[in-house]
Amino acid sequence: MDLTPHHDGSPLHVSATDPALGDEVVVRLRVPSGAAPVARALVRSNPDHEPVWAEASHDGDADGWQWWSARIIVANPRHGYRWDLIHADGSTSTLSQGGHSRLEALDAVDFALVAGNPPPEWLGGAVMYQIFPDRFARSAAASDRRWPDWAIPADWDAPLDPLPPGRSHQLYGGDLDGIVDRLDHIEGLGATLVYHTPIFPARSNHRYDASSFATVDPLLGGDEAYLRLIAAVHGRGMRIMGDLTSNHSGDAHEWFQAAYRHPGSPESAFYYFRDAAQTEYEAWLGVPSLPKFNWNSATLRRRFIEGPDSVVAKWLDAPYRVDGWRIDVANMTGRLGAEDLNAEVRGILRRTMVETNPDTLLAESTNDAAGDLQGDAWHGAMTYPAFTRGVWAWLSEPTADAWFFGIPTGLPRYTARQFVAQLELFTAQIPWRVRLGCMQPLDTHDTARFATHAAPGTVPLAVGLSMTLPGLPVVFAGDEFALTGVDGEMSRTPIPWDRIDEPEVAERIALYRDLIGLRHAHEALRTGGLRWLHVDDQTVVFVREAASGSVLVLAARRDVDVVLPAPLVIGAGAAEAAFGEATLGVAADGSVLLSAEGPVFAAWALPGVVAPPATA
Amino acid sequence: MDLTPHHDGSPLHVSATDPALGDEVVVRLRVPSGAAPVARALVRSNPDHEPVWAEASHDGDADGWQWWSARIIVANPRHGYRWDLIHADGSTSTLSQGGHSRLEALDAVDFALVAGNPPPEWLGGAVMYQIFPDRFARSAAASDRRWPDWAIPADWDAPLDPLPPGRSHQLYGGDLDGIVDRLDHIEGLGATLVYHTPIFPARSNHRYDASSFATVDPLLGGDEAYLRLIAAVHGRGMRIMGDLTSNHSGDAHEWFQAAYRHPGSPESAFYYFRDAAQTEYEAWLGVPSLPKFNWNSATLRRRFIEGPDSVVAKWLDAPYRVDGWRIDVANMTGRLGAEDLNAEVRGILRRTMVETNPDTLLAESTNDAAGDLQGDAWHGAMTYPAFTRGVWAWLSEPTADAWFFGIPTGLPRYTARQFVAQLELFTAQIPWRVRLGCMQPLDTHDTARFATHAAPGTVPLAVGLSMTLPGLPVVFAGDEFALTGVDGEMSRTPIPWDRIDEPEVAERIALYRDLIGLRHAHEALRTGGLRWLHVDDQTVVFVREAASGSVLVLAARRDVDVVLPAPLVIGAGAAEAAFGEATLGVAADGSVLLSAEGPVFAAWALPGVVAPPATA
Repeated sequence: MDLTPHHDGSPLHVSATDPALGDEVVVRLRVPSGAAPVARALVRSNPDHEPVWAEASHDGDADGWQWWSARIIVANPRHGYRWDLIHADGSTSTLSQGGHSRLEALDAVDFALVAGNPPPEWLGGAVMYQIFPDRFARSAAASDRRWPDWAIPADWDAPLDPLPPGRSHQLYGGDLDGIVDRLDHIEGLGATLVYHTPIFPARSNHRYDASSFATVDPLLGGDEAYLRLIAAVHGRGMRIMGDLTSNHSGDAHEWFQAAYRHPGSPESAFYYFRDAAQTEYEAWLGVPSLPKFNWNSATLRRRFIEGPDSVVAKWLDAPYRVDGWRIDVANMTGRLGAEDLNAEVRGILRRTMVETNPDTLLAESTNDAAGDLQGDAWHGAMTYPAFTRGVWAWLSEPTADAWFFGIPTGLPRYTARQFVAQLELFTAQIPWRVRLGCMQPLDTHDTARFATHAAPGTVPLAVGLSMTLPGLPVVFAGDEFALTGVDGEMSRTPIPWDRIDEPEVAERIALYRDLIGLRHAHEALRTGGLRWLHVDDQTVVFVREAASGSVLVLAARRDVDVVLPAPLVIGAGAAEAAFGEATLGVAADGSVLLSAEGPVFAAWALPGVVAPPATA
Repeated sequence: MDLTPHHDGSPLHVSATDPALGDEVVVRLRVPSGAAPVARALVRSNPDHEPVWAEASHDGDADGWQWWSARIIVANPRHGYRWDLIHADGSTSTLSQGGHSRLEALDAVDFALVAGNPPPEWLGGAVMYQIFPDRFARSAAASDRRWPDWAIPADWDAPLDPLPPGRSHQLYGGDLDGIVDRLDHIEGLGATLVYHTPIFPARSNHRYDASSFATVDPLLGGDEAYLRLIAAVHGRGMRIMGDLTSNHSGDAHEWFQAAYRHPGSPESAFYYFRDAAQTEYEAWLGVPSLPKFNWNSATLRRRFIEGPDSVVAKWLDAPYRVDGWRIDVANMTGRLGAEDLNAEVRGILRRTMVETNPDTLLAESTNDAAGDLQGDAWHGAMTYPAFTRGVWAWLSEPTADAWFFGIPTGLPRYTARQFVAQLELFTAQIPWRVRLGCMQPLDTHDTARFATHAAPGTVPLAVGLSMTLPGLPVVFAGDEFALTGVDGEMSRTPIPWDRIDEPEVAERIALYRDLIGLRHAHEALRTGGLRWLHVDDQTVVFVREAASGSVLVLAARRDVDVVLPAPLVIGAGAAEAAFGEATLGVAADGSVLLSAEGPVFAAWALPGVVAPPATA
């Protein structure tokens, strides 16, 4: 932090963010005046797992920063590299994604270029809006539908039943045309990517227990309604992403029904049966309604994920052409005991997408996702420890029994320092490009809602951080209605459309709209670098930097009075307030003074970073 | 460090160090009085990459420590787990191999049980002695041999030539019967495992450019001499380990000769030829004499590593029956550009060993080895960053241009704190069982010799640490003769047997003998846990703990006056000096005072750790 050398994977520092194998890439280091002077800089790459070094050239200085550049050849699909520095006093240090240290760095925290499998260009600019279809909105046609035998029909304003069977069988009857009816709202917020949880027929309100992947649930309006939704979304220049369970199906699934108690059936090999009669089987966390797929089966691969006739391809291809998949329980997919087919399965799935409609592929991996997130298949993840859990831990006032992502030790209390430390820890092993694809939700359909335990005045901080830190912002439908919910079940409240004009709701909607607008207004918030300028127990200050303009961000739970020494903030004299109530002053010596009453979230637009030409 | 909860992979804390998949293992936590009291402890496992928690029971207290136990089922070949703690004040923390933290831990630093592929029992007790055959000793027969055309014969006391062609062609004529003649010396030191660099015919003094794997180089005495050496080593109850190049052969190798310029030959697929005429090819770091193997070839696999007719099996099987392999350049093996067959190759190699003579398999992986060291194949590694480079950085007085493992920023200066921090960093991602198999050399045939830059009086610290920290101690032949050498070439000095009675040499030999003896005398130094008790800029104090007795270790560059609060040292009242000149006192409150003049390496024997019975 503060006066240390800086590098990250953003275009200011890397000449190509989506290189091919064998490409030459120029990487750049910046050293602020006031840091230990650098006499010599080298870039260590690790091709085929054996280190080599490239000498860096000193390019010149700008705005109090010394710039260096070096050329590296991308040798492996994940090309790790770090900066090894010799200082003027003869001491040495290393700069990696793990930070700036006098010690050597682990290979796992190298900066990393990823060759191949790039995300679509639109992903970087996307703001995701997550919809749980049964609870989002009912169209006029919804009331005419015949309810299935398993369903417990619920009125839109009826309370959620937290206990089985209501828990998963209470059906509110939201449908896809209901979403179409509300696209003005979604577009009005500024969201650009609609992600909906599963829409295949099932025997639950969440539909993660699909009984088929071949059609859209008639309760949602069927295939035709899905075509209408997709057309409406695309018609507004937005994108739409589906949800696929690669770890399991429902026990009512046509494949499972063909296999269960039917030894010799072609589908027998799709699951892990434990007895010859095929009555006992592996299931997700032992839940019998969710039998686990056995990815050793080539037939399963062909039917589900491999090639043009697969489920994966069908929905990406015409006439549907959805724009990507979020893969449920991606972290467990293909993993069982001694077997780990995960990399193989995600690789096949991704290849099928590339051949059909390459857009984007995200993994659900709710804990440490770094091991699977090296860029070979997933463009990012729905993952919680890096951003989501840290924000909760910093900005909540938890009760003793507050739900916390299923972690039995509960919701901890972090300082701002700890929030940043955990964010850095859990992103250090993820290549920058993949980090930009990782979702930054405050909550989802699987979690309590952030607002439930938010300390007074902290919602703008949380939403603001989700929109300004590197990653993919997510609005879980209902957050903009100021909904609360004590766990992943109780957060699935039907959207109270009739409350949309209430002051609290209108204010919250405006907050989202303004902060999403902030993100859209600044290229730096989508693709810019990240430098921490100040972190203490109550306050974080960082800057997202780009050549086109930078954004300075302040978030604090308490009153702020912070001095940032020059040259930390480049172009502070030309700063323009972009969000929030805070004051930025520049002292005669170039240092920057930020002050505000807390809690506060504030942002300023800064001029772009000017670098001397690279000389490497 | 100091008053924090403790767990590691040693038998005091884990009921089975070599479990099978599906086994139940009891894991135990210890919390010293004075640490934040623990109200509830849980063990988080991560089966199939999804967390589950097991509640721990409070077993009772002993010697000022609170003990907890929990049961876990080993779910995956690498079963990661950590302790999630709720303290009496409601705060939470996590204990992993990454340390004790208020933050969540990365999966990569989980404690880890490894199921399957256990190392041989003898490995834990081994002290390795590394021999570079051309430079170790000449037998009477050596002078009669016909020198090959490539060799530049050198007298035993001739200076090393650092420049090509002498660098690799200077041949001193050490041979295998020369080793037999000197086994008294090796056994007298206390070494139990002879590891020799390659002995296959080649066109260099180092023989890493094998021209065949089928026979032993006649210059070394041939197959018969090798049989004599193996018999002599085994006859003394010692073990012997060979060296195999799985990344490349020599360009004079029979396989390469069959392939080079011979399109269509069966061996064509053994290498990466770049042109149809098969004249251009991939080579180790571009060195043409070391063509890189292409492990896609099933024929290469069968001839070299797979099954009973392979090279790997031949030397493990009768009549040779060597006790294991050190695999050269294991880190690059099977890796090239987009291709990574490393896990596959090491898995096949290990399976062949298990079917022939399972003993042990170590990987050369000279930098961060953690990614390949999760226990699936390698039992450990010849690796430098964790121990070797840290010891150098702490205990050297480097010149500006001191060689440092090929790292162009040179030999850094670490404090003792930094030495420990780097050791912890580079072992945190390695399962305990594999850590015990990782070599702890001060130097090898590929490095300068430690003594070259050692600060005055620090050799006992360095040797002492190599013998007492968890890992496999290594004596590179010649270190006990107080040899120096400025780089990996110049460290290959012929052993000056005629100097063995000189005071400096005799003293150094006695130092090794005594410190190896210390290790052999204490089970805790072979399999005991590790707890750091005190670390400052000049001093490290740690204890290796076991039920059978513990060992307290002090290493310091300067004078020492350290107080260790109770209950850090268990049984201090019964401590017995075991090595070195230092004083241990126990105050009335149970705290322990260590004092000594530095530099110092000292050790004390302590009573074994007594734990209340596990109640989980």
